[in-house]
Amino acid sequence: MPNPNAYILTQMTWPEVEQALPTVKIAIIPLGAHEQHGPHMVESCDAVLAEEMGKRLTEKLYPEAVMTPTINMGVSPHHLHFPGTISLDPTTLIAILRDMMKSLKQHGIGQFLILNSHGGNQSTLGVAVDILTRELDVRIYYAKTTASAKDVMDRRIESKLYGHSCDREVSEAMYLAPHLVRPDKLEAADYQEGRWKKLRPGNPLQGFYYYEEMTRNGCIGDATKASAEIGKEIVETALERLAKAVQEVL
Amino acid sequence: MPNPNAYILTQMTWPEVEQALPTVKIAIIPLGAHEQHGPHMVESCDAVLAEEMGKRLTEKLYPEAVMTPTINMGVSPHHLHFPGTISLDPTTLIAILRDMMKSLKQHGIGQFLILNSHGGNQSTLGVAVDILTRELDVRIYYAKTTASAKDVMDRRIESKLYGHSCDREVSEAMYLAPHLVRPDKLEAADYQEGRWKKLRPGNPLQGFYYYEEMTRNGCIGDATKASAEIGKEIVETALERLAKAVQEVL
Amino acid sequence: MPNPNAYILTQMTWPEVEQALPTVKIAIIPLGAHEQHGPHMVESCDAVLAEEMGKRLTEKLYPEAVMTPTINMGVSPHHLHFPGTISLDPTTLIAILRDMMKSLKQHGIGQFLILNSHGGNQSTLGVAVDILTRELDVRIYYAKTTASAKDVMDRRIESKLYGHSCDREVSEAMYLAPHLVRPDKLEAADYQEGRWKKLRPGNPLQGFYYYEEMTRNGCIGDATKASAEIGKEIVETALERLAKAVQEVL
Amino acid sequence: MPNPNAYILTQMTWPEVEQALPTVKIAIIPLGAHEQHGPHMVESCDAVLAEEMGKRLTEKLYPEAVMTPTINMGVSPHHLHFPGTISLDPTTLIAILRDMMKSLKQHGIGQFLILNSHGGNQSTLGVAVDILTRELDVRIYYAKTTASAKDVMDRRIESKLYGHSCDREVSEAMYLAPHLVRPDKLEAADYQEGRWKKLRPGNPLQGFYYYEEMTRNGCIGDATKASAEIGKEIVETALERLAKAVQEVL
Amino acid sequence: MPNPNAYILTQMTWPEVEQALPTVKIAIIPLGAHEQHGPHMVESCDAVLAEEMGKRLTEKLYPEAVMTPTINMGVSPHHLHFPGTISLDPTTLIAILRDMMKSLKQHGIGQFLILNSHGGNQSTLGVAVDILTRELDVRIYYAKTTASAKDVMDRRIESKLYGHSCDREVSEAMYLAPHLVRPDKLEAADYQEGRWKKLRPGNPLQGFYYYEEMTRNGCIGDATKASAEIGKEIVETALERLAKAVQEVL
Amino acid sequence: MPNPNAYILTQMTWPEVEQALPTVKIAIIPLGAHEQHGPHMVESCDAVLAEEMGKRLTEKLYPEAVMTPTINMGVSPHHLHFPGTISLDPTTLIAILRDMMKSLKQHGIGQFLILNSHGGNQSTLGVAVDILTRELDVRIYYAKTTASAKDVMDRRIESKLYGHSCDREVSEAMYLAPHLVRPDKLEAADYQEGRWKKLRPGNPLQGFYYYEEMTRNGCIGDATKASAEIGKEIVETALERLAKAVQEVL
Repeated sequence: MPNPNAYILTQMTWPEVEQALPTVKIAIIPLGAHEQHGPHMVESCDAVLAEEMGKRLTEKLYPEAVMTPTINMGVSPHHLHFPGTISLDPTTLIAILRDMMKSLKQHGIGQFLILNSHGGNQSTLGVAVDILTRELDVRIYYAKTTASAKDVMDRRIESKLYGHSCDREVSEAMYLAPHLVRPDKLEAADYQEGRWKKLRPGNPLQGFYYYEEMTRNGCIGDATKASAEIGKEIVETALERLAKAVQEVL
Repeated sequence: MPNPNAYILTQMTWPEVEQALPTVKIAIIPLGAHEQHGPHMVESCDAVLAEEMGKRLTEKLYPEAVMTPTINMGVSPHHLHFPGTISLDPTTLIAILRDMMKSLKQHGIGQFLILNSHGGNQSTLGVAVDILTRELDVRIYYAKTTASAKDVMDRRIESKLYGHSCDREVSEAMYLAPHLVRPDKLEAADYQEGRWKKLRPGNPLQGFYYYEEMTRNGCIGDATKASAEIGKEIVETALERLAKAVQEVL
Repeated sequence: MPNPNAYILTQMTWPEVEQALPTVKIAIIPLGAHEQHGPHMVESCDAVLAEEMGKRLTEKLYPEAVMTPTINMGVSPHHLHFPGTISLDPTTLIAILRDMMKSLKQHGIGQFLILNSHGGNQSTLGVAVDILTRELDVRIYYAKTTASAKDVMDRRIESKLYGHSCDREVSEAMYLAPHLVRPDKLEAADYQEGRWKKLRPGNPLQGFYYYEEMTRNGCIGDATKASAEIGKEIVETALERLAKAVQEVL
Repeated sequence: MPNPNAYILTQMTWPEVEQALPTVKIAIIPLGAHEQHGPHMVESCDAVLAEEMGKRLTEKLYPEAVMTPTINMGVSPHHLHFPGTISLDPTTLIAILRDMMKSLKQHGIGQFLILNSHGGNQSTLGVAVDILTRELDVRIYYAKTTASAKDVMDRRIESKLYGHSCDREVSEAMYLAPHLVRPDKLEAADYQEGRWKKLRPGNPLQGFYYYEEMTRNGCIGDATKASAEIGKEIVETALERLAKAVQEVL
Repeated sequence: MPNPNAYILTQMTWPEVEQALPTVKIAIIPLGAHEQHGPHMVESCDAVLAEEMGKRLTEKLYPEAVMTPTINMGVSPHHLHFPGTISLDPTTLIAILRDMMKSLKQHGIGQFLILNSHGGNQSTLGVAVDILTRELDVRIYYAKTTASAKDVMDRRIESKLYGHSCDREVSEAMYLAPHLVRPDKLEAADYQEGRWKKLRPGNPLQGFYYYEEMTRNGCIGDATKASAEIGKEIVETALERLAKAVQEVL
Repeated sequence: MPNPNAYILTQMTWPEVEQALPTVKIAIIPLGAHEQHGPHMVESCDAVLAEEMGKRLTEKLYPEAVMTPTINMGVSPHHLHFPGTISLDPTTLIAILRDMMKSLKQHGIGQFLILNSHGGNQSTLGVAVDILTRELDVRIYYAKTTASAKDVMDRRIESKLYGHSCDREVSEAMYLAPHLVRPDKLEAADYQEGRWKKLRPGNPLQGFYYYEEMTRNGCIGDATKASAEIGKEIVETALERLAKAVQEVL
């Protein structure tokens, strides 16, 4: 198992980075959010999960990858009415990514994978990739942390709706970072009637709605059905597929 | 059938707009692109299809909707290596949308549907909605013009890959605006091997690639299998579903 | 007469553009507005007139010119208090022009003529030219669509003030695009007293005023005196002079 | 004659400003440039002339006006190939004007006259007025310093072309600020053949050209025919007309 | 000792934040950097130290303060030539701070302390405070993490120059986060001759120079003289003074 | 003594600039402010002092330096509640500096000294230097006009607090530009109790406060103790040191 001093930039000195660079082809940028996750998960959930996934993925890609500092806030306007949520403007997130890639390109790294745990960041990443690929002359990939294990989710998750502080996410946290979970507070979604039902994926329209229009407690799905074991299957499947996918495009 | 002077803003005088406004709840903003569509479709294809769909949808929503001028260029960096393509920066498209909604809000319209025919605009729309909903205090929806008829597409389109100057799009054009098509030039995709296969929807990674990495002639699918009849079924199904979906959220 | 497929980008496929490019020296960019034009003209008036002029001028310049998509909204803050007007911020219009020229420069076109039908865009064009010429290393020209026929206007137009939904503009529309005009609604200006008289060209001061400070019905001049024949003389004179002027600087 | 401490902000203490404000209705903002003016005028010419005109005009408007600091650089890309020229980007000039008006509005001043001596700033002022009037909710006027005396110029200036370091401008400087002129270096324009002739006002096309494309020594007209007496007639006529025009709109 | 779930936002659920807010008067924003720290400290040094100081200070201010997520990259252009350094543009850092404060203001928090461990961020903070205080109508304070213990530093640190990966910083890390230090790699600065000597604080001029112009190994001072005990005295003194200072202005 | 026509750009023609450039290594950019200076100094104080210092310093550096136009407004939000103050946004000041340096770089000048008389500009200069050095590939220095004579100030100034319209600044003005001072209005500071005492340099916290929170009359220190003789010692000492410092880094 490689030493973290050899692939996690936050834990490396500059001579260690210098030594690592000759084999490095890609930098993994973990991206999360700081937003409400219901009564049973802490608000840094996405940031921590992205970082934990990032560490494991980068280790698998050693010595061809390094991991950058985690972007620990994201685009979360939908959650701003719940106490504590902090949301970056999409242009701010793009500016952060630009500065990171520009700096790392100077060190000789020309490929990037943004490893994103928060759905609310996806559109911004689509835009960032369109803008920055050409502006900086780099190759940029992005991935939802565990989306590649969708088949596992569909098999293991009972809730019809999942995706935020739900059976899936709590399971992942139980496996990757159990301190994110308040096991004594686990709750299923407390759904509201409303416009949101017409705007979920698969409907003719998409659009902005606040999360409290959908769920009173800020969760969806049913976190009481989460388990570390489910989390493990999702996470390990995703990691394996991500590692393979990255190796294929490098 | 309502008179276009009663719901298409480009064809109305200001007293006609004034007369229409009291019942108007939503403005439909057609959004297209100006980009290569292979040897058998002209470059304004997306702009014209969005406008044609916009007209029909707005008519169905009369007297609760008006249609704005069409945004006739979009975010098309992937196509820039094909002659003639013009691409807006995502920030430019957001600026156009901001100015349009800000102007129309002053006239009393507070809900918007961006009716988009070009996949490359979708991420930018996601970002635009996140930014502008809160900045302008409006409600914004967006929809791909015919995506709600996905079941019809899956039934009627034989090609495994479709979405750009393909069986589906040429069919839609044959029905809605046949002058967009060069019937004597219809071709199937001329695919290339390459990285793009690893980046299509459903793969673990997403990322930017140029269209010529995927297809030499700029098409996908097989346009030779297109027909106005297929187009009609897709278009009319989508229009019916879109109209219903809009009515439900108004 | 050349085939539109050979010089109007919106009506061309990419192989047709590729074939046209070797002789093309300049791109014509029609620029209009979406704004109130009184009770007798529809709001797309400027956009349509610019496009019609653009087609005719580009045809005259064949095979040295191509016409781009029309920019169908412009800088119209003065008209925002009339129902339906949509105004772009000047910075948005500059962004659109930047993106268009940047895209077309990549296809090998380094000279541009912005053919503008709306007075309210002129200052923005002056600024755009100052910024973009040096930023993009291109040559940019701009022209009011029919301003070069000022002598004809002065001879044929009786109204002292003209320039917006007036004898001149309605005449041009009657010749170029009669569907823009509501012949049964033609009215002369309904002027107001006020500050605007001190701010018309020729006065010591210039400044911003809203159009309704000047005219209750949103017109100036006297549209009842318009005719397609006057329009024809203005338009054809201007086209001839514009074509000659472009040829002299190419 | 009022004391400059009562209307020139740069020469006032804050209690003096406080005392002046109750009668003040408008702030005069002198705007110049820093650019080459041929071999016989120094590069601050426009800034100094604007300031001198500003002082005299503000005095005439006492106690209804105050004069702000002079904006001593402007938009001069056309002159950048001559040694010493400094050019502001148009967006920078607009930012300066925004900050000035925003600050002064807080002190209770809601009307502004930008008194501009440099033709290259005019488009930017047109744009600034369109943007800032609505953004800041103020009234903004602008004027070329002596343009209102055009009839005098046409009578007294022999050169066909004038406008930059010419008979007119040198005359104005001889009267207002003789230290700007090198009397032993006076020269007529040293014109070049070229594209510029097709782009002067009155031609069908407008566009950007560098000043050295037009004149080798950076002047136009014939400065050897300048005189303080001509300058006096132009300046005093313009001042009288400007003062009257301002009083009429206040 | 208060529970971290009661004042560290990253470790709180939204109901916990909701419960904390009624007594909260200020949010502490830790700000660091990701930059080279010589051969004996890892590149996240500043981010980790800021976070550690933030935790301790927020605890002391309980229940009047909460701590936000740490901004783990900063303005580090001077270090960009050392492998691994990532630098944010100052405008990016200001954008992050704007978004954070705007979000938190919506939750009812109107005072902020940016607790900054990196000298290179100070100018940007000065600007951020000037801009954001008025724009967001909030009160903003900022402090270098341990600068208030300058007397202790002057007494305990032998090196004439200190401030970056030096006796002082390594001592602080040994006390607060020993994993940041490579004890077997401790080195004194390897100074270069050069321009930098003329640009250190106290000289007539200030200016930009790259860190490698000053020191070959990226350190200043003499880290071999660092100790956890020195670190403790600096840190605890600073924390006490910071807590008192915050309480006095709340 | 060199002729001002040989080193002060505002007083030079372009052929004079052309003649000067071969020996010029640096441009001196005087930077001031337009802000209240209590009842005994006019609001242009900082702009005039910076320009006067600039002239003298540039003369000393002849023929290696030229002086640019003075930036006569600065970043003064703290003073905006006193009548007359005009404040530039920090981003505006950076834009001005960018445009100036970009223009001058084209004339062959690659080093700059921003000679700043106003403390409120210092943070913005720190940021400007970080951004523009790399963006424009130039060397940038900045200095407070007389800060290098701090030892003289400490010896000659009796007031404990000084820095704005105080013994020191009035003394400098009495020596450099006596017309800035109202000798019959000289007053000592009229201090207020308040939060500012906790935010002065040397305290643990820094932060934004309005000047009227500190002093009712807008001054600090005791201007009644100012003299031209003190001013002379400060100014001449600083000029000598600045000239030497610049020569050492050229």
